[in-house]
Amino acid sequence: MPVPSSFEAADVAELPPGAADALAQVNGALRRVELTFDEALRSDLPPVQHLVRHIEAYRGKMLRPQLVLACGLAASGHSKPGTLPIRPEHIVIGAVCEMIHMATLVHDDVLDEADVRRRGATVNRLRGNEAAVILGDYLFSSAYRLCSTLPGAEGQRSALLIGQTGMTLCSGELLQLHHRGNFSLDEPTYLRIVEKKTASLIGAACRLGALASGVDAPTGDCFNAFGVSLGIAFQIQDDLLDLTGNQSVVGKPLNRDAELGKLTLPVIHHLAHADPDRRGRTLLLLKQVSEQETDHAEHLLNALASTGSVDYARDRAVRLVEEARSSLVDLPETPGKQLLMHMAQRVVARSF
Amino acid sequence: MPVPSSFEAADVAELPPGAADALAQVNGALRRVELTFDEALRSDLPPVQHLVRHIEAYRGKMLRPQLVLACGLAASGHSKPGTLPIRPEHIVIGAVCEMIHMATLVHDDVLDEADVRRRGATVNRLRGNEAAVILGDYLFSSAYRLCSTLPGAEGQRSALLIGQTGMTLCSGELLQLHHRGNFSLDEPTYLRIVEKKTASLIGAACRLGALASGVDAPTGDCFNAFGVSLGIAFQIQDDLLDLTGNQSVVGKPLNRDAELGKLTLPVIHHLAHADPDRRGRTLLLLKQVSEQETDHAEHLLNALASTGSVDYARDRAVRLVEEARSSLVDLPETPGKQLLMHMAQRVVARSF
Repeated sequence: MPVPSSFEAADVAELPPGAADALAQVNGALRRVELTFDEALRSDLPPVQHLVRHIEAYRGKMLRPQLVLACGLAASGHSKPGTLPIRPEHIVIGAVCEMIHMATLVHDDVLDEADVRRRGATVNRLRGNEAAVILGDYLFSSAYRLCSTLPGAEGQRSALLIGQTGMTLCSGELLQLHHRGNFSLDEPTYLRIVEKKTASLIGAACRLGALASGVDAPTGDCFNAFGVSLGIAFQIQDDLLDLTGNQSVVGKPLNRDAELGKLTLPVIHHLAHADPDRRGRTLLLLKQVSEQETDHAEHLLNALASTGSVDYARDRAVRLVEEARSSLVDLPETPGKQLLMHMAQRVVARSF
Repeated sequence: MPVPSSFEAADVAELPPGAADALAQVNGALRRVELTFDEALRSDLPPVQHLVRHIEAYRGKMLRPQLVLACGLAASGHSKPGTLPIRPEHIVIGAVCEMIHMATLVHDDVLDEADVRRRGATVNRLRGNEAAVILGDYLFSSAYRLCSTLPGAEGQRSALLIGQTGMTLCSGELLQLHHRGNFSLDEPTYLRIVEKKTASLIGAACRLGALASGVDAPTGDCFNAFGVSLGIAFQIQDDLLDLTGNQSVVGKPLNRDAELGKLTLPVIHHLAHADPDRRGRTLLLLKQVSEQETDHAEHLLNALASTGSVDYARDRAVRLVEEARSSLVDLPETPGKQLLMHMAQRVVARSF
């Protein structure tokens, strides 16, 4: 099955020739990530394999493996001479990060009672919440098993970081759950939730991709910082798409955040900046949306526009991408780095 | 909080003096397992820590850590001279196995819609299914992170086995889910489900406990075989307690298996051996129990007695414990081994 790349034809044409070669290398390696992913999940038990096949059809943008590979290439300017830019470790780490991400998606869909994901029915919808909970656990276990196959001290470091990141992810989800329906949520708390639940794994993917190319620990920290800023920007863009996107392009129902009582950055900004009367009306509107009384999406967008809150969130995401890029300012300007910088730009330009 | 040991005062009196010392050593080490367990889960985030505290109150028999420690002692007759019988690795592995077990309990309670576990309300009942799903994921991640702290090749082998065991556990759960409500389930399929969902982790606990005492791989296989047979016996005893136990002693509601459409060994044996008329009446009864129409527990027990099916299951569990013991027949008769054999006996004699 072809991977829907984050890059569309128009983007590829904008890439410098060296970076286009790097992209071809990343896309080739992504096929190997897919094979490793499928191989690691395979089961001899037909009921298990049947569910696993469903997961393969779930496959999305593969952002995390793409970042592992692109960071691996960008970091290889730092590596010892003679090291192949993309190593088997990059493939395994890419598959591990995608598996952890997939596990959280399968469980998120249970939590959110979602029926559609990536234009297909969710596991919980098709096979029940029970199968979805166990399948998520199977994905988590498989990710950790696969990570433990990486040899030596480097492998152990990866396994430790992946386990730690799993805990951080869950802490972010629990914090989000704790604040569900809290209409006084402030921006620092929102950012803390997003950093934990979304950006920590993207940061880990970037760090591990770079470390597998042989960079030292402080350079690994820079790649992590790059990934964390990019991950927060990615989540804000997701929030914006949930509000303003085109459902047929995004591939899942819109306005789910408001329906589920999850406050997103535009809404948080609006509630903090609207006058008391406007604030009261928006709160009423959010309550109606969460009770799914009717389709208030357009009213909500109008309210947000009155305080410039959609533009604010968009600017915040753009600034976060700039922060991400500046984390790697000391990295040599190789084709791998050009590709990585281009990918970072795409995160806030994407429409799905 | 004191651990409700698998041993009651009357049992301890039956132990030979050396084995009683070994038990004291195991009980002392169990306190260290608890501390390691709590320390590994600790969070700075109050909403996370609040849930984690709930898990600490959930703590049960700690069968898996007990087996890690007792197998460690029993295997230390094989270890190099000068090795301390209980090593820090045993403590970590004990905490890891308990954490994986706890994660499956928390998720099982979501799947089973259980309200009570170990005399307390379940996480899903108190805090909702969402918190319970994420808390289970947090426990899984924490177990894998903790396992990855074990140093060297031995640590890597443990992490790989724990990841693999997690996958096996989930496969067993998925297989069980697949057969839920299948009244033609046969004994070999039942045993395959139980081996995967319950016995695999108990086998891994025994194997890793022995390996951490320095035994070679074939001896590790014997300890695994011991744990797998014991684990199946343990599950059959659980099935029996669900049917025949005293609710105030077992600590959770009875007859849940039948209510949830899960066939247990006595029921499978009965359906295979009853005459067609009796079989038809039992199937009707099971349907009524699963629809919770009224309390048919006594009728079900009478039906099972008519084919000797409760006794059959009891005998099967006893034979499995004998098989478990014979897996370690070549092991020197140390006090550690005496304790382990005594623990094995308790598995089918327990009333909770």
